[in-house]
Amino acid sequence: MEMKKLLDGMLPDVFAALDKCENCPAHHNVRRRISMVGQQAVVDVLEDLIAVLFPGCHLRQDGPAGEVNGYSPIMLEKTALNLREQCRQTFEYQCTLHECDDDCGKCDAHAVEAVGALVKSLPDILGVLQQDILAAYEGDPAAKSTMEVVMSYPGVYAVIVHRIAHCLYQQKVPLIPRVMAEYAHSKTGIDIHPGATLGEGFFIDHGTGVVIGETCVIGRRVKLYQGVTLGALSFEKDAGGHLVKGIKRHPNVEDHVVVYAGATILGGNTTIGAGSVIGGNVWLTHSVPPGSKVYNQQPNPLIREADGAWRTVDGPWDDLGAGI
Amino acid sequence: MEMKKLLDGMLPDVFAALDKCENCPAHHNVRRRISMVGQQAVVDVLEDLIAVLFPGCHLRQDGPAGEVNGYSPIMLEKTALNLREQCRQTFEYQCTLHECDDDCGKCDAHAVEAVGALVKSLPDILGVLQQDILAAYEGDPAAKSTMEVVMSYPGVYAVIVHRIAHCLYQQKVPLIPRVMAEYAHSKTGIDIHPGATLGEGFFIDHGTGVVIGETCVIGRRVKLYQGVTLGALSFEKDAGGHLVKGIKRHPNVEDHVVVYAGATILGGNTTIGAGSVIGGNVWLTHSVPPGSKVYNQQPNPLIREADGAWRTVDGPWDDLGAGI
Amino acid sequence: MEMKKLLDGMLPDVFAALDKCENCPAHHNVRRRISMVGQQAVVDVLEDLIAVLFPGCHLRQDGPAGEVNGYSPIMLEKTALNLREQCRQTFEYQCTLHECDDDCGKCDAHAVEAVGALVKSLPDILGVLQQDILAAYEGDPAAKSTMEVVMSYPGVYAVIVHRIAHCLYQQKVPLIPRVMAEYAHSKTGIDIHPGATLGEGFFIDHGTGVVIGETCVIGRRVKLYQGVTLGALSFEKDAGGHLVKGIKRHPNVEDHVVVYAGATILGGNTTIGAGSVIGGNVWLTHSVPPGSKVYNQQPNPLIREADGAWRTVDGPWDDLGAGI
Repeated sequence: MEMKKLLDGMLPDVFAALDKCENCPAHHNVRRRISMVGQQAVVDVLEDLIAVLFPGCHLRQDGPAGEVNGYSPIMLEKTALNLREQCRQTFEYQCTLHECDDDCGKCDAHAVEAVGALVKSLPDILGVLQQDILAAYEGDPAAKSTMEVVMSYPGVYAVIVHRIAHCLYQQKVPLIPRVMAEYAHSKTGIDIHPGATLGEGFFIDHGTGVVIGETCVIGRRVKLYQGVTLGALSFEKDAGGHLVKGIKRHPNVEDHVVVYAGATILGGNTTIGAGSVIGGNVWLTHSVPPGSKVYNQQPNPLIREADGAWRTVDGPWDDLGAGI
Repeated sequence: MEMKKLLDGMLPDVFAALDKCENCPAHHNVRRRISMVGQQAVVDVLEDLIAVLFPGCHLRQDGPAGEVNGYSPIMLEKTALNLREQCRQTFEYQCTLHECDDDCGKCDAHAVEAVGALVKSLPDILGVLQQDILAAYEGDPAAKSTMEVVMSYPGVYAVIVHRIAHCLYQQKVPLIPRVMAEYAHSKTGIDIHPGATLGEGFFIDHGTGVVIGETCVIGRRVKLYQGVTLGALSFEKDAGGHLVKGIKRHPNVEDHVVVYAGATILGGNTTIGAGSVIGGNVWLTHSVPPGSKVYNQQPNPLIREADGAWRTVDGPWDDLGAGI
Repeated sequence: MEMKKLLDGMLPDVFAALDKCENCPAHHNVRRRISMVGQQAVVDVLEDLIAVLFPGCHLRQDGPAGEVNGYSPIMLEKTALNLREQCRQTFEYQCTLHECDDDCGKCDAHAVEAVGALVKSLPDILGVLQQDILAAYEGDPAAKSTMEVVMSYPGVYAVIVHRIAHCLYQQKVPLIPRVMAEYAHSKTGIDIHPGATLGEGFFIDHGTGVVIGETCVIGRRVKLYQGVTLGALSFEKDAGGHLVKGIKRHPNVEDHVVVYAGATILGGNTTIGAGSVIGGNVWLTHSVPPGSKVYNQQPNPLIREADGAWRTVDGPWDDLGAGI
């Protein structure tokens, strides 16, 4: 009772104060009566799409009796209609922000077009994903079956989500591709901006801490390990001191490149030539030609043994490996 | 049937053996009939609080018809009552641990006070979060709108959770602030101890692998990238060889500092002066004055080209950037 | 309506094309009418097992009235029966893959045996976990109680899951141990292959980015910090150029070793001797004897102060600490 009385006395002032938060996009929305979907609704659609692509082995339980693994056009149609509604809302949100206070009348048409394009692309997306799955199976000695790869590899999951989100990004759908990408980031620790272009047979092993920037272009059969950053070198600012948005800021990685754990490759003018191998923890801010092997100089950690003697390292040191 | 018979024969012994686990805090609890909330209950409260702060754009679905985005005092009151019950349980748990076997009689009063303080602070918390959101939007060229920042940036999510958890930490609520912080850690890969003090306009980009220790004090408009550690240098031990708890162990970071990806800053006596920039992967265990730029010496990875020739690096190397 | 018409025209072709994805393990399954469980079913079983081990302080809400915290043989029996069904499915999946098209008739017996072995081991697993919890409490100055450790430490959670998954791995259950391990990876950023052998009193602090490979063998009272990799040096290939699977690829770490944040230890022939301390960010690809202290040479970041003056570092540099 005491708590309730305390709250009853407090809540009118608290809500009045919350309402005065003029700059908050959320409250602004509420006042304009724009009802944005929460992230959970977007995630539900995403997981349904994944269940359609990988019936019976991703997340969802079995469907109704008579259907194997819930793999059905009815489910996809329902999901597509939900996604269209979400896309319409985000197109309208963008519309009110940038163009006009009233609906421009085209938002729903944009949503229909975007979702149609995604549904139509699903078989192509699955075809590319099968190359990704094969690359994972062939690239990891611990992989026991392709089913294990599909059901448990975080790097594969992040790429599944990316290929869906990237398709919506190409259709210029606001917000939703990024929400999908950040859901995968949350689950896997792998942060791939939906704008990045990834060739087929792409594999990220372990993956925690990987960052792939918006304007990266990555070739075929590329393999990354955990903690790899493909990032920007520095940000251009305009005359007013604001960051310039929308320019090429991230590296290109050509076909058949391997980048070992913890390496950092930065800059929009940086290209890693085809077939190169970048060693663990290497820091690279310029291009290397095809077929290069890049590794840090011999690490010389100091070793003080139990009896106080010092020792240096004379073992082999030029192994690039950080394969796990 | 076979399985059931096997289990029926096995379970009495298994449970008897589980019950003998004398030192387990959980089983100890059960025997004393203290009913602790599970983490999910704490997380539900946390997500409701976030939905109140950011109606319609965080996690929760739309509320009942007639309410925009479920933004309502009724919802907050219900959440506050749940949180009070959880706080009472954790105060009682601490009480039985440290003070007496019977309830001291003050646990519920402490819970009411703590929850009241949090609810009253919500408008101030939202005001500071708006500065955080703005800092994220202005600091990342990939950000398309503040709504995108609110809905999808893990660094912003981690800071939202921290500002709620820190308020309960200041009210000395046991367990719950840490459970909230670890939920954010789980979702974002960003590990901020609820005791850390963060100035307004704080932004963490990408964020996976960031660790911010309990006694850190961070100024205004500070920006961190993924993999940054603000940690302790070493632990003091008492005469009995046990760690000394409760002393200043983590660095101070003054206003307008940028720390690039993978940098490690350690020690309770370390202060990074205002406006400094710390380069990617730098390892720093001492203070630097305001306006410093700190970066690693030129990295000299070895490059063996496809024809076997060796090449060294002559490109620019003093760019601090690891902005992505 | 427009969207529905568009979809109705499109879906038959889309599904026909999806069905042609010959190589997809998922679609292959569907055609053979193998109904694999989704990951969520495996995760539900895992969380039930954890709730049995730590009643009232992990995830699940209170059980029915009269039971304290839902700690009951009935719940465990139900969970065990679900797990047996899942194990049977995965044994059958493996069976159809590798041996025969028809059920070999032994899959269910293998499932019963595996689940029986796990249930029988639960008290032993809990006994070891109590040592892990104690090690966490004693090893972290920020830990306020063992309950806090159980309820909120990601390193402890990852080890709880590992000890369950490792038991099923030893029973040769396909897929499920890895799905459990990747669930823990997803929640904690800690990637422990279910094949790894971990001694008691094992503690990982913070943990994001930790990778522990399949053939690691780790002694008692070992402590790791975030970002530590215990990995493979390079992969052996057979005459056909394929990776050799199933050989010892990862290091041994003996009793009472501490490995600070970001260190990388690689190779199946690498052994870290008992009582050694490996400093932050060290890169080690060979063995060190018991009692060694290994750390990087003095880091010499360049410091340009606000007035343009350059400064070098003369502070202490031989502290191994990256404890947080």
